[in-house]
Amino acid sequence: MIDPQRYPLLSRIQVPADLRQVPEDDLRAVADELRAYLIEQVAMVGGHFGAGLGVIELTTVLHWLYDTPVDRIVWDVGHQCYPHKILTGRRDAIHTVKQKDGIAPFPKREESEYDTFGVGHSSTSISAALGMAVALQRAGDERKVIAVIGDGAMTGGMAFEALMHAGGMEPEPNLLVILNDNQMSISENVGGLTKMLGRMTGSRTLNAIREGGKKLLGDKHGKPARFVKRWEEHWKGMFVPSTLFEEMGFHYTGPIDGHDIDALLAALKTLKTLKGPQLLHIITTKGKGYELAEGDQIGYHAVGPFDPSKGLVAKPGAKKPTYTDVFGDWLCDMAAADPKLMGITPAMREGSGLVRFSKEYPQRYFDVAIAEQHAVTLAAGMACEGAKPVVAIYSTFLQRGYDQLVHDVAIQDLDVLFAIDRGGVVGPDGATHAGNLDLSYLRCVPNMVVMAPADENECRQMLSTGHRYEGPAAVRYPRGTGPGVAVQPTLDTLPIGKAEIRRHGSRIALLAFGAIVPAAMTVGEELGLSVVNMRFVKPLDRDLVLELAKNHDGFVTLEDNVIAGGAGSGVAELLAAEGIVLPVLHLGLPDAFQHHASREQLLAEAGLDAAGIRASVLRRWPQLTAASPRSAAL
Amino acid sequence: MIDPQRYPLLSRIQVPADLRQVPEDDLRAVADELRAYLIEQVAMVGGHFGAGLGVIELTTVLHWLYDTPVDRIVWDVGHQCYPHKILTGRRDAIHTVKQKDGIAPFPKREESEYDTFGVGHSSTSISAALGMAVALQRAGDERKVIAVIGDGAMTGGMAFEALMHAGGMEPEPNLLVILNDNQMSISENVGGLTKMLGRMTGSRTLNAIREGGKKLLGDKHGKPARFVKRWEEHWKGMFVPSTLFEEMGFHYTGPIDGHDIDALLAALKTLKTLKGPQLLHIITTKGKGYELAEGDQIGYHAVGPFDPSKGLVAKPGAKKPTYTDVFGDWLCDMAAADPKLMGITPAMREGSGLVRFSKEYPQRYFDVAIAEQHAVTLAAGMACEGAKPVVAIYSTFLQRGYDQLVHDVAIQDLDVLFAIDRGGVVGPDGATHAGNLDLSYLRCVPNMVVMAPADENECRQMLSTGHRYEGPAAVRYPRGTGPGVAVQPTLDTLPIGKAEIRRHGSRIALLAFGAIVPAAMTVGEELGLSVVNMRFVKPLDRDLVLELAKNHDGFVTLEDNVIAGGAGSGVAELLAAEGIVLPVLHLGLPDAFQHHASREQLLAEAGLDAAGIRASVLRRWPQLTAASPRSAAL
Repeated sequence: MIDPQRYPLLSRIQVPADLRQVPEDDLRAVADELRAYLIEQVAMVGGHFGAGLGVIELTTVLHWLYDTPVDRIVWDVGHQCYPHKILTGRRDAIHTVKQKDGIAPFPKREESEYDTFGVGHSSTSISAALGMAVALQRAGDERKVIAVIGDGAMTGGMAFEALMHAGGMEPEPNLLVILNDNQMSISENVGGLTKMLGRMTGSRTLNAIREGGKKLLGDKHGKPARFVKRWEEHWKGMFVPSTLFEEMGFHYTGPIDGHDIDALLAALKTLKTLKGPQLLHIITTKGKGYELAEGDQIGYHAVGPFDPSKGLVAKPGAKKPTYTDVFGDWLCDMAAADPKLMGITPAMREGSGLVRFSKEYPQRYFDVAIAEQHAVTLAAGMACEGAKPVVAIYSTFLQRGYDQLVHDVAIQDLDVLFAIDRGGVVGPDGATHAGNLDLSYLRCVPNMVVMAPADENECRQMLSTGHRYEGPAAVRYPRGTGPGVAVQPTLDTLPIGKAEIRRHGSRIALLAFGAIVPAAMTVGEELGLSVVNMRFVKPLDRDLVLELAKNHDGFVTLEDNVIAGGAGSGVAELLAAEGIVLPVLHLGLPDAFQHHASREQLLAEAGLDAAGIRASVLRRWPQLTAASPRSAAL
Repeated sequence: MIDPQRYPLLSRIQVPADLRQVPEDDLRAVADELRAYLIEQVAMVGGHFGAGLGVIELTTVLHWLYDTPVDRIVWDVGHQCYPHKILTGRRDAIHTVKQKDGIAPFPKREESEYDTFGVGHSSTSISAALGMAVALQRAGDERKVIAVIGDGAMTGGMAFEALMHAGGMEPEPNLLVILNDNQMSISENVGGLTKMLGRMTGSRTLNAIREGGKKLLGDKHGKPARFVKRWEEHWKGMFVPSTLFEEMGFHYTGPIDGHDIDALLAALKTLKTLKGPQLLHIITTKGKGYELAEGDQIGYHAVGPFDPSKGLVAKPGAKKPTYTDVFGDWLCDMAAADPKLMGITPAMREGSGLVRFSKEYPQRYFDVAIAEQHAVTLAAGMACEGAKPVVAIYSTFLQRGYDQLVHDVAIQDLDVLFAIDRGGVVGPDGATHAGNLDLSYLRCVPNMVVMAPADENECRQMLSTGHRYEGPAAVRYPRGTGPGVAVQPTLDTLPIGKAEIRRHGSRIALLAFGAIVPAAMTVGEELGLSVVNMRFVKPLDRDLVLELAKNHDGFVTLEDNVIAGGAGSGVAELLAAEGIVLPVLHLGLPDAFQHHASREQLLAEAGLDAAGIRASVLRRWPQLTAASPRSAAL
């Protein structure tokens, strides 16, 4: 429970209606308590940190000034939603964030009426808010709609699409877009927009002059005189490229200091009365108010538990490498061996393991900003000229480059390697970050080679295989660590479309894809079954499957992907095409979006840990218990 | 063969090397011949028309000035590529466009070394060209790279992503983007960018003044003096919003008249010598030089054969309605019945059948420009506020909204209906326009209801069903006309997840999805088999499938989707989940991208016409020929 001594104001705020009882003069104090509480709570349990600290003042002012949840706030991406959750009924539950049955780390409609739109992926807020604004407008409903979007998220093409639509729409939609400009996404932002916004921020002084001039020369209603309007445009043209948004059809206000409550109140009180598409540009600091986070904005984007008085402490000793680490090392080693290798990331340098590569090979490192579509087609273009691009991307974000993967890479059979991190069950980040669909949406695409490693060393081998293969290939590996197999420093490849028999058993063959191989091995040992590490989702090892079909009574396919259209279905399709009739049991993820929980919890829930697999196999073949040579010993 | 009398210059040009023998003063005449030849050829056989006429001069100048194919030209979308094809080795084959074994209607790498990048979908050219430019730059290769992109394609978010990346990149990429501004995509363009470009064009006079000033005040090397630079920015800020591109980091030139060969030459000769990201803005007229096409730019975007002296003539008599027509009528009827219905199209008003709806319900009609991602999330936002959006989209373009469908619609279980036109085999437009993957990439998504109609009336019923259903649903129908079933004017719905037995037969059951049902019926009649119109790809009619499994010796699943992960795999998954072992034969599209040909040719090639289905069934079950009661009569 919250301590009323430390948090005299916040302890009395359960929901925004309580906040709105606080006088305006106390909002600074509320914000300070909110910041302190966020630091305390996230330090205790971990979670997204810096983004929330950057919007403490904005969140406080928005919920104080607007009539939420009647008025609609859409938070882009959602890393910054913790203060929002604290002020909207979830103050005492924020310490359960990311945990099974706890609160979600992102806005989620099921969780609260204050979470107007579920997010996790970037750049959706303007589209969603515009949809809301239009639906309300057509229904004659006057409630307000606000999208809060970072400058990082603004680099995503769909944000641009939405701005363009909103700015050109007639009748004008009543929509406020707040651009939260902190020059950061998870890493530093890159690209033209960032440069542009940097120039805007730099011209704040001139903007102040402009504001002064407006006051000086405005008419008695505060409206600037015609001459001033022209003069204002002149200044903008020379110094303030905010014209970008005005040209798109938005009325632009700013930039203002997003940590200055008075400035926020002044701007928003006016904006609240205005119709049409409005853009408020605020400048904030990610990690604001926690010095260590301000100084290391990347490190404090998301944290594990830590002592707030000490900050993050590097854990001593050699850690087991994650699949991300394996990829990062491979990328550097292969870059050394092959000067044609290019590494591409859509704004996920840290998450995808490209930090070292970015330093060692800056000329071959491309952070394209939050721009998955462009990332994929950029790679296609590179491949046309003989380069060998590697697109490092999370499974769930590759969904956003799906058309580009099909249309630009696969149709043209271009030599692009997709290094797909966070394939399968991801866990604490919830359904929006799950990689549960990738084997299905990739397997149906002609020309693709799709691999899933059973362990760390195989991941490296598959990356080398995909890189050497002259066509589109994907290696899909899970979040976190694997079974701990030592990674060989060589750049060996695997034969395309060849599986590996891990255990010669009898009666039933377990055909396992990727991360689930170790659990399959456990069950195979227990029940005396054959176990195959399939390695290739596409092309399948046809010869081996047909051979196994001859001397087994049935197959179990196993994968950490939805069953619908997954790797196991590929096995069934192969049998059907060959006219082989054999009992098959498909084990995989359910046809449902999984809530946040740990990866292990979700796998167990889906029956994909060894116990669950064993139970499913025995349910289908009860005779295995008694009949198998090993099972008697269990 | 080309007539040397009518085309004295063009008849001597097989490839750009020939063109480059023509003196500069004759380029106007070459362009005139090229235009006349394009009109003659397309009028004869049909094809994309207006876009090609708009870039006759640009195409001529580019191939004359640049050393193609060493220098790389990337055409966005590709509707405008016919003049390019004529000048690059395909002059005498242009009359075979879109036909089986003829030339493709879009640039295609397999077809010609001059086709540097395959297109069909919009807004990819800057990403692809940037990838090429970077790969060449890193390899120390000085060849030039040019992307030609329309202002319509520029509305796609990924074009913005690419511009931002290119503009912010260090070292600067050597890339020329030519913005072909004709204020059109297939329909009129909409949105903020279009308005912005409109203002730019309007300020051409001022731009001329600016150019004059530059000459006047430049130093002896032609470089503008420092003062003029400042003065130039001033003018731009006040009058020419071209700052957009300059702010992004591009050097902007224009706008110039894209039909003025001298202006093009002057601009491009300079640009060819410059390094860094360059943007040339040209103004053209779609359909230029053929008066009827200039006057009806939408009608002449793509044409069937016509008499050039008369133009397009409306065919008399009542035509069989296409599925697109069925959708368009349904949309208007349902809009009349339900004021909450909203219709959304990403710049495909004509193609998707929304012309009448856009006129009758302008307040509920949303053309979002070429912005599939935004289209889907806009719908999600609308659904959050109780509206009932219908996203009308081609199957192949929905690939571009895939993440939004998963992340914004399906995870949140929102009430959005996808009316997916051009599902399955599309035909003459080739692999880039094929709808071969949609059942696979939709079926793996939890919460989705996926329907495929067997005929026109069922299409209408399914649209009503999806609209009334309170969750995400998709109706996926083919290009062109169906079997000709009369469409009832009612707004009846179908029970979710219920199939329809079309024929009670014996031994084998044909389970057919969507457009393939009539062919399945033919074969079922011939061989005395059961035939089921499955209707729902998801959820499957479990009860019926299990019932049929009891009294049949095997199943044949039929669909015009790839077999990998398709509807038939869903049937096999269901059987496997139930522990039922039954021979299944999956018939569907191959695991390969199909080249352009007619829809009928491609279906026959895939063995999905009645003859092909019959042959496949008999190959698996040879005994059916003799055993079936009806087959003896054949």
